[in-house]
Amino acid sequence: MKKLFLFILLFPFHLIAQNSQSDSIAIRKIYNETLSNGKAYEWLRELTKNIGARLSGSNAAAKAVEWTKQKMSEAGADTVYLQEVWVPHWVRGGAGIAQIIEANGNKTNIPMCALGMSVPTPQEGILANVIEITDFKQLTELGKENIKGKIVFYNHPFNEKYINTFEAYGEAVWYRWAGPSEAARYGAIATICRSMSTSEDDYPHTGSMHYNDSLPKIPCAAISTNAANLLSNILHANKTTKFFLKQSCQLLTDSVKSYNVIGEIRGSQHPDEYVVVGGHLDSWDLAEGAHDDGAGVVQSIEIIRTLKALGIRPARTIRSIAFMNEENGLKGGRKYADAAKEKNEKHIAAIESDAGGFMPTGYGLDMEINQKAKIKSWIPLLKPYGLFSFDNEGDGADISKLENMNVPRLGLEVVSQRYFDYHHAASDTFDKVNKRELLLGSAAMSAMIYLLTTYGL
Amino acid sequence: MKKLFLFILLFPFHLIAQNSQSDSIAIRKIYNETLSNGKAYEWLRELTKNIGARLSGSNAAAKAVEWTKQKMSEAGADTVYLQEVWVPHWVRGGAGIAQIIEANGNKTNIPMCALGMSVPTPQEGILANVIEITDFKQLTELGKENIKGKIVFYNHPFNEKYINTFEAYGEAVWYRWAGPSEAARYGAIATICRSMSTSEDDYPHTGSMHYNDSLPKIPCAAISTNAANLLSNILHANKTTKFFLKQSCQLLTDSVKSYNVIGEIRGSQHPDEYVVVGGHLDSWDLAEGAHDDGAGVVQSIEIIRTLKALGIRPARTIRSIAFMNEENGLKGGRKYADAAKEKNEKHIAAIESDAGGFMPTGYGLDMEINQKAKIKSWIPLLKPYGLFSFDNEGDGADISKLENMNVPRLGLEVVSQRYFDYHHAASDTFDKVNKRELLLGSAAMSAMIYLLTTYGL
Repeated sequence: MKKLFLFILLFPFHLIAQNSQSDSIAIRKIYNETLSNGKAYEWLRELTKNIGARLSGSNAAAKAVEWTKQKMSEAGADTVYLQEVWVPHWVRGGAGIAQIIEANGNKTNIPMCALGMSVPTPQEGILANVIEITDFKQLTELGKENIKGKIVFYNHPFNEKYINTFEAYGEAVWYRWAGPSEAARYGAIATICRSMSTSEDDYPHTGSMHYNDSLPKIPCAAISTNAANLLSNILHANKTTKFFLKQSCQLLTDSVKSYNVIGEIRGSQHPDEYVVVGGHLDSWDLAEGAHDDGAGVVQSIEIIRTLKALGIRPARTIRSIAFMNEENGLKGGRKYADAAKEKNEKHIAAIESDAGGFMPTGYGLDMEINQKAKIKSWIPLLKPYGLFSFDNEGDGADISKLENMNVPRLGLEVVSQRYFDYHHAASDTFDKVNKRELLLGSAAMSAMIYLLTTYGL
Repeated sequence: MKKLFLFILLFPFHLIAQNSQSDSIAIRKIYNETLSNGKAYEWLRELTKNIGARLSGSNAAAKAVEWTKQKMSEAGADTVYLQEVWVPHWVRGGAGIAQIIEANGNKTNIPMCALGMSVPTPQEGILANVIEITDFKQLTELGKENIKGKIVFYNHPFNEKYINTFEAYGEAVWYRWAGPSEAARYGAIATICRSMSTSEDDYPHTGSMHYNDSLPKIPCAAISTNAANLLSNILHANKTTKFFLKQSCQLLTDSVKSYNVIGEIRGSQHPDEYVVVGGHLDSWDLAEGAHDDGAGVVQSIEIIRTLKALGIRPARTIRSIAFMNEENGLKGGRKYADAAKEKNEKHIAAIESDAGGFMPTGYGLDMEINQKAKIKSWIPLLKPYGLFSFDNEGDGADISKLENMNVPRLGLEVVSQRYFDYHHAASDTFDKVNKRELLLGSAAMSAMIYLLTTYGL
């Protein structure tokens, strides 16, 4: 009897009563419309298969801007416009070479790719001894005497014990991001980095790195997880193993004109109050960018289509944004936030989808506790759709700069297990996306936007 | 302030206090061990790639029995034994033929497969007019005068508005299961059925059907969803379209010897009280049976390995069972339940994984309300692992017959969006399974079994 009593206590009848039946019906209609008539999946096919990889500054990125503008209009946005963003234009050049050269003369080519924004090697490549580092503190312990003139091999695997793979990524990614300059501090002449991946396979995963301007800029590359295991084993057997690295990537220009694409549905009651939803349009050059982040872009366009199809006119203005340059500069996110602040635009909230087009599980909430409580009061409306996670933080890089205006920010949370298998690798292709999971993510954002535009925060 | 108050009220601190810290630690250890050292994924590779399709009665099914016995021993079961089960042995024969023959003479071969347990067509095949049925009630409306001598084409698509795809399957599957006899009642000479699938593609999906003994047994086949759409369009343009069907499947024998494989860890305090965990070992002949249900089998063996590796000796006895013949007879599940009842064995609970090796979300609970309440009191221990769904029913076919002894039954709930893309089709292959999702499913069952064996129900 005691248990039954607890059960009744915990069941939030009072919250259901707070939210009107009309909200429940509106959200059901949003899901029905998205699941039955959603176009996001076919749009993603076009974006990934017809345009493909679209690194900032590339011709494909420019095509993607035009394509997105067109789709937002077709979806029924009241207005669609471009926001100028100046972005870097980095290119990979030809395929690089990474080779393990054993003491006995055996040479093994391994899968590699330059890290984004890396400098090239000299044309003849770099041949040097290699030293394995699994933790930054080993750099200090080993010191310049052991590192100078060598290639540092960062081999910090994902900690598989985390349930959410983003936590493992958050720990490991520092070796990719800051590793080159940290190694240069001790005289290293290049770095190679174990790919940021949950799986053990032959795909190298690229991604951004950042040079500390006060240190020498050394070339850096990623190698596949299988190759990292191989190299580690060979090094354990013989520390005199050498490594050859050659890559011809370069930063063509630090500033080329590009755009954020913005589609609006004007609010009926408070047109000057904004709710932002978005993803990023640029991808790495190796990948079709299906999960990262074609998914977030087409989901955000789908929201316009769905609400228009249902004749839902929001009380506040919705801005669906395809941000440019998340991958190697975040110039689109910065530009939007700066412009919004300059114009003193009132932003109710912003939500981003940039964790892949997988099954949605809830929302990361970056905001004040009273705002979190208001969103949690909507749980009874959202839980029937499998949305249960409201306790984590984490928004999205593109909307993160809105923190400067104290804008409450949400990130669409999804099942994270497969994301880093594909992230920034050639395997991030359209076929890895499930149509219903993609559409459910869009519907989860539409439902939240419906509530945010209706009730504010 | 009101909202904050509600938040505190809802947060189940009292429940956390009820469950000891040691349970929390034990469950964390189970997850760590499974995620770091789990062998389920490599076992699944062996089962699907080295043995492959393993329909009841086949040589491969016999091999799978031996393989499972071996793996359960290696995993550390105290005892492993076989339970004799007599199963049907149905074979597909050669590849069948399904052909649309338009009024203008155009012939189009379409992807097809015989439904499991179907009778063959005559050797020369069946050529007839075809009538489309989207709802059983149309059979009555059309009557014998319109159906007699024709091929009935069941074209009832999955209702995409359901969030959980099992609900759509539950609605549509009657056309596969009961459709042939229902059509025969009105004089149809064969049926073809739209594949039970969430996706539109070229895979035909087989699956069981059941003949009503009082009606003529007519041949029945599935066609791919794309083919169903094509045929429907052609029929709408011209009702005189004909269809040719040829298949040489047959039931070789109604009874061949096979086995359930059972591995036990004996309970330390109540060895004669049992907690069952399992999946089914047989698969359809078209598929490797990776998600259906190799996943459930290797997850259930993994539970033995994990608990043994951690030195956890359960208070009650765990029986890990690889059931035989779930797909076309359920003879393994029946046999186990009958034997348990005959021996009057005390079963605390049974849990099955037969919804694919996808990300676990919770447990379906088929039991009394006080038992449900006890399991729900463990939510604070399980929610950190993404397990939030405790409000649905649904166990697993193999353990369903334990209802006769009023055994509380649980089904591992997982993200359902991709399952029916592959279910009973040639696309249900090892590469569709994600290692971490598979292991997380095993850990979710281990954690529940730890609680069930420790506290009873």
